[in-house]
Amino acid sequence: MRKVAIIGVGQSKFGELWDSSFRDIVLSAGIEALEDAGLEGKEIEAMFVGNMSGGRYLAQEHIAALIADYAGLAELHIPSTRVEAADASGGLALRQAYMAVASGMHDIVIAAGAEKVTDVGSEAAMEILASAADREWEVFAGATLASLYAMIARLHMEEFGTKPEDLAMVSVKNHKNATLNPKAQFRREISLEVALNSPYVAEPLRLFDCAPLSDGAAAVILASEEVAKKYTDTPVYISACCQASDYIALHNRKDLLTMQAVVHAAKQAYKQAGIEAKDIDVAEVHDSFTIAEILAYEDLGFAKKGEGAKLIREGVTSLDGDIPVNPSGGLKACGHAVGATGIRQAVEITLQLRGEADKRQVDAERGLALNVGGTGATAVVTIFTR
Amino acid sequence: MRKVAIIGVGQSKFGELWDSSFRDIVLSAGIEALEDAGLEGKEIEAMFVGNMSGGRYLAQEHIAALIADYAGLAELHIPSTRVEAADASGGLALRQAYMAVASGMHDIVIAAGAEKVTDVGSEAAMEILASAADREWEVFAGATLASLYAMIARLHMEEFGTKPEDLAMVSVKNHKNATLNPKAQFRREISLEVALNSPYVAEPLRLFDCAPLSDGAAAVILASEEVAKKYTDTPVYISACCQASDYIALHNRKDLLTMQAVVHAAKQAYKQAGIEAKDIDVAEVHDSFTIAEILAYEDLGFAKKGEGAKLIREGVTSLDGDIPVNPSGGLKACGHAVGATGIRQAVEITLQLRGEADKRQVDAERGLALNVGGTGATAVVTIFTR
Repeated sequence: MRKVAIIGVGQSKFGELWDSSFRDIVLSAGIEALEDAGLEGKEIEAMFVGNMSGGRYLAQEHIAALIADYAGLAELHIPSTRVEAADASGGLALRQAYMAVASGMHDIVIAAGAEKVTDVGSEAAMEILASAADREWEVFAGATLASLYAMIARLHMEEFGTKPEDLAMVSVKNHKNATLNPKAQFRREISLEVALNSPYVAEPLRLFDCAPLSDGAAAVILASEEVAKKYTDTPVYISACCQASDYIALHNRKDLLTMQAVVHAAKQAYKQAGIEAKDIDVAEVHDSFTIAEILAYEDLGFAKKGEGAKLIREGVTSLDGDIPVNPSGGLKACGHAVGATGIRQAVEITLQLRGEADKRQVDAERGLALNVGGTGATAVVTIFTR
Repeated sequence: MRKVAIIGVGQSKFGELWDSSFRDIVLSAGIEALEDAGLEGKEIEAMFVGNMSGGRYLAQEHIAALIADYAGLAELHIPSTRVEAADASGGLALRQAYMAVASGMHDIVIAAGAEKVTDVGSEAAMEILASAADREWEVFAGATLASLYAMIARLHMEEFGTKPEDLAMVSVKNHKNATLNPKAQFRREISLEVALNSPYVAEPLRLFDCAPLSDGAAAVILASEEVAKKYTDTPVYISACCQASDYIALHNRKDLLTMQAVVHAAKQAYKQAGIEAKDIDVAEVHDSFTIAEILAYEDLGFAKKGEGAKLIREGVTSLDGDIPVNPSGGLKACGHAVGATGIRQAVEITLQLRGEADKRQVDAERGLALNVGGTGATAVVTIFTR
């Protein structure tokens, strides 16, 4: 397998982008990535697109061919492939692109992620997002993603003494980080009090425990090491990009408090990169709900099982802590444009490792991204190095 | 790149499978493929699933993790990836699986395709299928897949003198072949007269020019050459699996009568396999509409542009002709379970090359499958050898 580098990154603003179409949003991210890499579109050899529900949000499938077309690449007839694993779709796109270059099949490829969510209204959007869970055994019985994560949060509190304040602190941290990110959906700090007094979405999860509905897109351009050197002096290498699966319905899992897909993907990724959890300097993790960030600390090995909340209490994952987590603002405050999220995380880690993250810059040589589908039936862990 | 072999194939019956759920159908195909290969599920290292519209047909996304779970593979935490390119989704799944083995990343993987279409009723199903075309520029203006192909058919008639009888003969041939296929949806011969007197769907395309709505699933197991030899004495090798894209909306193409994605994918595939079109002994092509089979003859190089109809008139593509096309009955009569079709084609070619196609067996050492998305914005051409 060849060494693979990220040579260009781009991201649209995340948020309620009512004045832009799905196509506009994807293009803005793609063009930014091409400009960042100093590439022309015609040098792209293949495209991979992460998108969860174009069929339901837009009445449009065949998303990857559509994007290749609107990006002006139809004349090149390049293979353009959509992948889907709920909100881990972006991570899958990154992984397919990584494999295409690592295997020697292609020299330069683009991985994009995109979702236009808010046009359908929040009730429909929530129902569509619930199709990440098991429709027959969970959703038909009334479960939503929030209610499923609420059960996990409740059990975590029972078993390990995690408190509503701990969850709220994750939200406060991520909102604070987002104030430094011009692409973020929410750029205002919130106080612990505001978070703790926000209305319940699914008890014990309150409004500020839940990532918002967002439109957005992101793109990264990957190249082989040799080719990368022609385009950039600051390549960011992907040392591992591993994907794992798990039971889709929570009731089938032996332990609700461990996402086995995350554990397995992380274990493989650390092994492939030849490092351990403690070697990670910065991470973007999948905080679709605040409890998910606490679980991520544990399942990625940043903390022992049950002790995730300690990291947030002690400021270990703050921007100035030992392992800054979600410097972008995370899904909570940068926004969660579903299929775009896994790619957006890669954009942030790349900027951090290049030293181009401006006011939210942390000191980092090695970064990690964790993208999760639904309640954890899919996980992708990617490790990046300077 | 390593040599890749198909070591197991399975297919559900295609048709209106109202007494089986999506999950049942996928499992039946997967289990048949495992039994055919003499493998246990736990030997599978990765899964790729082609599915067009689980979100709209089933209100279920996250399809690949779901299938891994229901197949009893969740405990293994293998990567399970859904790909989508409208009705070329199956072809994409085959290609991703092929690349995973060819690159050395995995030794044994499964590629499946599945769709449950008929539960939503035919009007909703047609609308969902139309999301393979450009929603903003074609579908919103009233276009359906049938009407888009009707324009192509009309122009082919104008330009090249292709006749309604030629189209009808494709249908008659494929229905005749399907009588010999126990998995086919329609197993009755039709006469030219019946086809020519069936009602118009979109003039000049009549009912018997259009593939039906079908439920179904198919699966193939791929392994590296070395591993394949442990499991089978009749490996079928994939000599090439190439994918290309094109403008999604017909009005952007320079020539409506040439599917450039097919031309490009075929050219690459022949080159990679070191053969020419004339070396193909048997083919499964994407006859979603009869005109599509005529175009396929031309764009694959079996006939010159404009002369596709000659092949059907002269019986060249009949079961006893020089290049039997769609011995399975094709999409028209075996059925078109959308995301399953690309994999089902691979199943048929494998059976043909193994000499296991029973009453529809043809004499063949080298086969080809062409899977097309929508009106041709995606094409996958795969070449198989004994």
